[in-house]
Amino acid sequence: MTSGGSASLASVQELETRFLKACVDALGADRFVTGAVDKQPYLTDWTGEFTGDAIAIARPRRTEEVAALVKLCVEYGVQIVPQSGRTGLAGGAIPIGSGPSLVISLERMNAIRSIDSSSRTAVVEAGVILEVLHDAVLKHDLVFPLTFGAKGSCMIGGALATNAGGSNVVKYGTTRELCLGIEAVLPDGSVINGMTGLRKDNTGLDLKDLLVGAEGTLGIITAAVLKLAPRPTARATGFLALGSLDEALDTLNAIQDRTGGAVEAYEYMPQPMLDAICRAFPQTSLPLTGDVGTGILFEVASTRPSDAEMMDEGGTRLESELLAELEAQMENGAVLDAVIASSERQRDDLWRMRESVLESIQHAGPYYTFDLSLPLGRVAEFVAKMDVAAKDLGFAPLVIGHLGDGNLHYALSAAEGVDFHDLSLDAAKAAAFDLLADLHGSFSAEHGIGQSKLGLMDGMKEPAQLAAMRRIKQALDPQNLMNPGKLIPGVEARP
Amino acid sequence: MTSGGSASLASVQELETRFLKACVDALGADRFVTGAVDKQPYLTDWTGEFTGDAIAIARPRRTEEVAALVKLCVEYGVQIVPQSGRTGLAGGAIPIGSGPSLVISLERMNAIRSIDSSSRTAVVEAGVILEVLHDAVLKHDLVFPLTFGAKGSCMIGGALATNAGGSNVVKYGTTRELCLGIEAVLPDGSVINGMTGLRKDNTGLDLKDLLVGAEGTLGIITAAVLKLAPRPTARATGFLALGSLDEALDTLNAIQDRTGGAVEAYEYMPQPMLDAICRAFPQTSLPLTGDVGTGILFEVASTRPSDAEMMDEGGTRLESELLAELEAQMENGAVLDAVIASSERQRDDLWRMRESVLESIQHAGPYYTFDLSLPLGRVAEFVAKMDVAAKDLGFAPLVIGHLGDGNLHYALSAAEGVDFHDLSLDAAKAAAFDLLADLHGSFSAEHGIGQSKLGLMDGMKEPAQLAAMRRIKQALDPQNLMNPGKLIPGVEARP
Repeated sequence: MTSGGSASLASVQELETRFLKACVDALGADRFVTGAVDKQPYLTDWTGEFTGDAIAIARPRRTEEVAALVKLCVEYGVQIVPQSGRTGLAGGAIPIGSGPSLVISLERMNAIRSIDSSSRTAVVEAGVILEVLHDAVLKHDLVFPLTFGAKGSCMIGGALATNAGGSNVVKYGTTRELCLGIEAVLPDGSVINGMTGLRKDNTGLDLKDLLVGAEGTLGIITAAVLKLAPRPTARATGFLALGSLDEALDTLNAIQDRTGGAVEAYEYMPQPMLDAICRAFPQTSLPLTGDVGTGILFEVASTRPSDAEMMDEGGTRLESELLAELEAQMENGAVLDAVIASSERQRDDLWRMRESVLESIQHAGPYYTFDLSLPLGRVAEFVAKMDVAAKDLGFAPLVIGHLGDGNLHYALSAAEGVDFHDLSLDAAKAAAFDLLADLHGSFSAEHGIGQSKLGLMDGMKEPAQLAAMRRIKQALDPQNLMNPGKLIPGVEARP
Repeated sequence: MTSGGSASLASVQELETRFLKACVDALGADRFVTGAVDKQPYLTDWTGEFTGDAIAIARPRRTEEVAALVKLCVEYGVQIVPQSGRTGLAGGAIPIGSGPSLVISLERMNAIRSIDSSSRTAVVEAGVILEVLHDAVLKHDLVFPLTFGAKGSCMIGGALATNAGGSNVVKYGTTRELCLGIEAVLPDGSVINGMTGLRKDNTGLDLKDLLVGAEGTLGIITAAVLKLAPRPTARATGFLALGSLDEALDTLNAIQDRTGGAVEAYEYMPQPMLDAICRAFPQTSLPLTGDVGTGILFEVASTRPSDAEMMDEGGTRLESELLAELEAQMENGAVLDAVIASSERQRDDLWRMRESVLESIQHAGPYYTFDLSLPLGRVAEFVAKMDVAAKDLGFAPLVIGHLGDGNLHYALSAAEGVDFHDLSLDAAKAAAFDLLADLHGSFSAEHGIGQSKLGLMDGMKEPAQLAAMRRIKQALDPQNLMNPGKLIPGVEARP
């Protein structure tokens, strides 16, 4: 395709018309959104950073319809953009600027096909909204532990495509680890059915883990078998002030051992982040007085009935054992101060504080956020060095982290009295990326690459890994039609 | 290569001589075993079922040496057979019959590079023996939870290549889930270094999970970052007699909930298996009297100090809560009889019984074993139908299973008074594979495909999945030199 003279434009339009007619002939007109205004919501996402264009938005209802659409795209050379909730942060579900595209929205494939209480699995389609699944499995006294801010609108397909993370990964793993099997349409229109729900299956290459996290570049995941967990019956939530990030890691290990691995969240919230929250939400009552230094919001949860028993000294057994550990950690000097929520309201306050982080960063003015991860033992070093580098450049760092996973959302806002746009974001990025390279960290821990970070891949990923990714991509999608311009840089279509 | 006339034989010999000279020039003679007698141990494995030939056995000491060897193999068109402990059950580490091969043994790459107590990770090379790693991490009060019969001689490289399972998968996952990152030499001799140990990293396709379980067909894993777990301080081991396999699954869930997910092993041992053990080891004292029907050997373990506390009524808290659950399950009729080991000696007796299974099956005479898995909810149906089919054909089934994973090692021996060789094993296999297809099971749960099950792939795997595997294999290994004739059937070298 060229964007050249009128003849070529006419031929593009003619191809698009023929393609759309073939699509409608195959699936029926009610499966497509074609009007310019109606298409608009599907051509941008939550961030608003990326927009694209598409011949149409297809909204198939069945896997065979997805396969038929992919085959037509291959026949006509039309790019395929799989899409579900459009809550991604990297532009992965939005068409790129060049070449004719078909958006395939999975939103109508939204059935929870089954929930099996004995096997503790759910079979769900890609268009199921995460929170809808949460509610459905709760009726069986089970939980699907994946959770993050966008749960009310993000869909399972996108969570799988991006291998989404969130705050419960420390206990339950990422989306990849929560997925036992997938059904997917490959770039040639063939369908793979890996929906067995097997816990062990060593018969060939691991296509499931390859497609999960591939951001739709190797195929369209249409359904999945997901692991469920029993619903906890006892819970304790609290906040810690610690001397350092290294001590925070040791304290996490100690709490894990004391509670038998019950930690569901261990969220790093240092004092500057708390200050930003108080500026944005002045009615916030902080859990601890004074400077918390290395602050941690934590939650432990257990299914053990004995953990919900009330103790003579007050509180549940889970709270009592947690308290004993925190006292031990205060005695050895790692924990400086601590509080455990003593009511559901106090717990809600803690989580409300956590959930107001994004708005608080936005309230602080223009900002840029890194989604990075480090080996657990290198987090402290990264934060110490990056804080210095950022401040030297005139930035005020605002950091929130899933510390149990070594995952930091490190935001740069402008220091007081400084205009963000006068600062050198490029210098700050260079400092961060150099540090990540030194400390063997990742520049995209859980948000993925999409369009927004594609330009970083060549500089940050090992050439041998990039080459292998390209070869796999070209082998499965020789025409480079499946979500092109995302995740893997420098992919060329084979003639 | 042809095995034809003398001219072509001479040219093969000449190529092998030149290749070996180039290898020795590059790495030094001490890296190679070339004598016919000295090579012999490397040309067969524990099963003795497969033997092959190789120009030489290379025993590199460093990753760069492995890379140099692979590049020479590519240059000379020599097949590469990665090998570590040779304890695999599918012939995956033994050269196939055709074409000149180089065995690359990882046995000298046996360093535990580091153990990090805070991050709870170990960095190990492929030639580390599993039990050596167990012992090393125990000194840090940590465990590497992967364990199975061959632990004293199997090596980490082979465990990763086959995604090994074992009896602790129900709690800790398979080898793939225990591995945070790998270093590997790809079929073109390039090295990928994914040894970051990150818990979250969404920067590209998941090469780690693709190479783990690829049985050396996509590259040679030379080192890995492995997850460690805290050492349990309380433990309870016992045996259950249950009414049915479905009730065994519900009871597993109940014990998990009661103990906060503390189940480390849940091994199915039905009465005929116990009978076989008693015949092979007449001094065995069975844990329960009478017919146990659906027998289960189980173990729960906890790091919680409170679980090791002694209760007023005797026993630890963990035992006491477990007992309460078993009483509840006896009241509702699922559990018919139960015993918890009250001494270390009783615990050892239970595990000795479990570990004598293989010898007991062998003692029963000639046999054939399936390594299969089913969705958890379909195990009961499979066993019921397969038992009938096997008995109808004159077989006596001897079954042991990792029930929490839906994984059965289903052995067929001859019924009493029948000669195994008079029975139709083909008919029994057909019955098993038909049932597996019906119930969405796997014909290789944890042992892999190697050579022994390669012939089953075309019939049992979905064509679309096979096609995708072949494309990936050809993309990364266009000459088909990396462990050819294993795992993926019908791979052709590109010219």
